[in-house]
Amino acid sequence: MSRHLEHAPGLSEQHDPATHEYVFNQTMLRIKAPERSLHFYSEVMGMTLVKRLDFPEMAFSLYFMAAISPSDRKNWSEDSDTRIEQTFGRPALLELTHNWGDEDKADFAYHNGNSEPRGFGHIGFAVPDIDAACARFESLGVPFVKKPQDGKMKGIAFIQDPDGYWIEIFTPSRLPAMLSAHVTD
Amino acid sequence: MSRHLEHAPGLSEQHDPATHEYVFNQTMLRIKAPERSLHFYSEVMGMTLVKRLDFPEMAFSLYFMAAISPSDRKNWSEDSDTRIEQTFGRPALLELTHNWGDEDKADFAYHNGNSEPRGFGHIGFAVPDIDAACARFESLGVPFVKKPQDGKMKGIAFIQDPDGYWIEIFTPSRLPAMLSAHVTD
Repeated sequence: MSRHLEHAPGLSEQHDPATHEYVFNQTMLRIKAPERSLHFYSEVMGMTLVKRLDFPEMAFSLYFMAAISPSDRKNWSEDSDTRIEQTFGRPALLELTHNWGDEDKADFAYHNGNSEPRGFGHIGFAVPDIDAACARFESLGVPFVKKPQDGKMKGIAFIQDPDGYWIEIFTPSRLPAMLSAHVTD
Repeated sequence: MSRHLEHAPGLSEQHDPATHEYVFNQTMLRIKAPERSLHFYSEVMGMTLVKRLDFPEMAFSLYFMAAISPSDRKNWSEDSDTRIEQTFGRPALLELTHNWGDEDKADFAYHNGNSEPRGFGHIGFAVPDIDAACARFESLGVPFVKKPQDGKMKGIAFIQDPDGYWIEIFTPSRLPAMLSAHVTD
């Protein structure tokens, strides 16, 4: 049995024990204005601010957002140092970086990676019901790059956060049928 | 008790039940050449390819990598459709997108977001021992943007993947002491 679930050239079959406890912890995006981004990720996406770090010498702040359910909330320590360890030790944190003063630059915008020069593409969220989620996003005035019924990939959507970063939205149980029309075995 | 662990303007105190089960599932990066990227993420970072999706009509492939321990391996289904649901339903997947043919373009490179125009910054991994991890990266010939002893932030490192994307490396238990010199309460 391979340690991977699929085949592809380049894969290392060795799984170095030094890496067994590595955790894919964070994805960092620069944001122009924290107030609008924190509103978006907490209100629209339901994320929780688990740690904020302000670096006055270097004039930036970091906001670590996690998708946690209300029942998880009690597992987070009120002690700042303990919470730093919790924040950096768990998977799937969104790290929003605010360089102080960006919010005051009239024509300033960060690059979302989906026009030239391209690179980073998007983050993605699984939601229990994509139709309900998209109806809610519409009612909240969230801009769409692609609605579920648009294009070839029916049943997945892309919305944009306040900086224009793309967020893919999908419901896992609906993907096998949708993908079967497009992917090869 | 706030639903957040820190204060900041813009945060929504409401936690809409519609969002309680949202999962921050994926971060998508475009890669020029899958063979070198799959080698890097499986050998150097210890990640496992859990799903590969090839879209011949649209001439691209997606590689979903997860940081799973050997003991987690058995929880992944051999059935492709079941594994699609598992892949898209869990947190912290790295989605590598290969647009077919990019690997043959001599001067082509994706943009890592850390020179103009900036936007996306990095992904980050927690490791059990940053010194051991960095010694291993050096022995494997991985390029460093910052070694742990460089700069103001002692004890964190940045390496680069084959496309030049930055990967932050840190050990959670060592961060409170390091950060205390720089952050305000």
